[in-house]
Amino acid sequence: MNIIENGGVTAAKGYLAAGACAGIKKKKERPDMALVFSSVPCVMAGTFTTNVVKAAPVRRDMELLARGNNVRAVILNSGVANACTGLPGEEDNKEMAAECAKALGGGVSADEVLTASTGVIGARLPMDAIGRGAALLAGALAGTAQAGHEAACAIMTTDTQPKECAVSIPVGEAKVTIGGMAKGSGMIHPNMATMLSVITTDAAIDRALLQEAVSGCVKDSFNMISVDRDTSTNDSCIVLANGQAGNAPITEKGADYEEFRKALAFVMTTLAKKMAADGEGASKLFEAVVKGARTKEEAVIAAKSIITSNLVKTAVYGNDANWGRILCAMGYSGVEFDPYQVDLTIRSAAGEVQLVKNGMATDYSEEFATKVLSADEVTAIADMKQGDCEATAWGCDLTYDYVKINADYRS
Amino acid sequence: MNIIENGGVTAAKGYLAAGACAGIKKKKERPDMALVFSSVPCVMAGTFTTNVVKAAPVRRDMELLARGNNVRAVILNSGVANACTGLPGEEDNKEMAAECAKALGGGVSADEVLTASTGVIGARLPMDAIGRGAALLAGALAGTAQAGHEAACAIMTTDTQPKECAVSIPVGEAKVTIGGMAKGSGMIHPNMATMLSVITTDAAIDRALLQEAVSGCVKDSFNMISVDRDTSTNDSCIVLANGQAGNAPITEKGADYEEFRKALAFVMTTLAKKMAADGEGASKLFEAVVKGARTKEEAVIAAKSIITSNLVKTAVYGNDANWGRILCAMGYSGVEFDPYQVDLTIRSAAGEVQLVKNGMATDYSEEFATKVLSADEVTAIADMKQGDCEATAWGCDLTYDYVKINADYRS
Repeated sequence: MNIIENGGVTAAKGYLAAGACAGIKKKKERPDMALVFSSVPCVMAGTFTTNVVKAAPVRRDMELLARGNNVRAVILNSGVANACTGLPGEEDNKEMAAECAKALGGGVSADEVLTASTGVIGARLPMDAIGRGAALLAGALAGTAQAGHEAACAIMTTDTQPKECAVSIPVGEAKVTIGGMAKGSGMIHPNMATMLSVITTDAAIDRALLQEAVSGCVKDSFNMISVDRDTSTNDSCIVLANGQAGNAPITEKGADYEEFRKALAFVMTTLAKKMAADGEGASKLFEAVVKGARTKEEAVIAAKSIITSNLVKTAVYGNDANWGRILCAMGYSGVEFDPYQVDLTIRSAAGEVQLVKNGMATDYSEEFATKVLSADEVTAIADMKQGDCEATAWGCDLTYDYVKINADYRS
Repeated sequence: MNIIENGGVTAAKGYLAAGACAGIKKKKERPDMALVFSSVPCVMAGTFTTNVVKAAPVRRDMELLARGNNVRAVILNSGVANACTGLPGEEDNKEMAAECAKALGGGVSADEVLTASTGVIGARLPMDAIGRGAALLAGALAGTAQAGHEAACAIMTTDTQPKECAVSIPVGEAKVTIGGMAKGSGMIHPNMATMLSVITTDAAIDRALLQEAVSGCVKDSFNMISVDRDTSTNDSCIVLANGQAGNAPITEKGADYEEFRKALAFVMTTLAKKMAADGEGASKLFEAVVKGARTKEEAVIAAKSIITSNLVKTAVYGNDANWGRILCAMGYSGVEFDPYQVDLTIRSAAGEVQLVKNGMATDYSEEFATKVLSADEVTAIADMKQGDCEATAWGCDLTYDYVKINADYRS
């Protein structure tokens, strides 16, 4: 697997992208609309929020996915989520797709255009800005890394960094590329899919197999991160495959499918970790590995319980090896285990230290533990010794800035 | 029902209490041990944490409760939770009860003494301080309101206020009194019982009926609050009844039992709300009422989802009527409902304003909504219009001070 430096949604063959300032956000100089376009029809796969309250674009995309038609483009906006906007919001959303199809011309129909929105819940889309943005985007489409980067920047809200990743793998004689972008910084506790992410690949792959790979990879990547335990109304992970790599189509499980799945998992995990690390107000990425669980599901529950605990998150922020909070979070997760069998180790670029052996403190150095916790990326490894299953979850610390950002998000 | 001004654990007949500085906490001048004593044997009821990781005192109290013996005293300490301390911790805990029984003299046995601890997880109890504290407490026991107040102060950790409440009700010709104290400010997400709370009553009541009343009242009071979604390892709610009121013993359900149950519910709810309002770093009490749910359980789930959302909590801190976060939190709670039927109103001493009608924004004034949210106690009322069930949950806002307190709790 080859990692493509600065690669994103335009890394795979046949994809163009653009970002634009349409004037949706209060700060008019900030880009707020993005477009990803394939020069040929794509099969599509996707996963969407499980929140009962679903934004208008999520409802429409799910419908299009269920119909199984090919698609050509994804148009996205930041600033307004178009959630809790009722029938008028659904009309706005349809119009956004129609405006995009019109701007693209060349026989692209509205039903081939997916939509995604992120931002404030409850506000209506400013349709004049959306129309203007669609025209700007269609005119600016390019297949360069820079164009992909501009699209990634245009979907940011409280994100401090755009999030992109691309890799290529050999499939038979052909080179298949997978690239993607994502946004997400707050209201991040994906449960099925997450935030906004568009991933493009030039692989030729059967639609059902693509969906299977996407659903599986989402479980171990986007669904294993959390910034604030708040599952958004707009979570959408959209994956397009346009077949331009010229590989022998992947139509069944086997070596090619496995390679493709691994590369897709890498792209999704990389984007997911970037999201966790850039969680609202975060100063560091916090990874929790739970080993020795009886089932994978229990490992997932315990790992997510650790990274979502406000008390663990504030201790990580304070570089405080307050391990009791980690055992406490495992304890209330709903997973059954014997606390007096748990081992706990923390690890980072600064070193590794075992804090707990069989449920009780080791004779560790607080000073060294603080040093380990002071790194930009910190991992806690808990071994429950109940079985052979394992899971990894990613989150971030809870800081003053999280409170600051969210106490006056709209003002 | 008569509310007793400044009443607490000594309000009911036959109870003495004391607080003392035993030297467990780093700040040696802060009281850190408390004792509640009944001059005659009591029947006992209680509920305890559902966390798999249970502190030594919780394990022992649960055993004593299961045995059904009468009890005479509860000794409590703050500063060290005696959780994750293994067999040595269980020995320390037994010794704490034994030291207390010895200091009390007069034929009180260790098995008649309950224990409760709160503070840092993983640290051992300083047994010399515990022994010294037990002696100090036994010498200082008094039946005054001041003595009850000192006990309530001695169990505080990050609490900024002691939490006490007492009421009296007529039961036949007799006057029955119920009084209690509680502590809890962080790691508050009770699930079955909560934090430390000792409630005393002079009622003569059958032990099984007392337990039934306690379990029922805990569900609607302590179990409906959350500061940080972290269910502690030490949650204990202990209720003692010594029969000194001289009422005709309550041995079956009926008018007397109902009156008693209502008074107990009032004491528990008052203490629970005091805990939520004094949540770590909190600037205000936040109450969520969910109406129109299909079942009580769904109302409970949705109400707790609202008060535990970090995004809702930070918006409440910022006096920001960001109602989309409330609908979002209901939406991911797991409860099924039609978002386009939900009405949402906020209310406080400053007034009342409907923000949402049928899932969409009303034409409310942001300025007035901010004024409503600026009060010390704010209520959000969501009507799902799916049925007739209702629940109320209490939490607090998420502030800079929460992060500050928890980033360096141990230092």
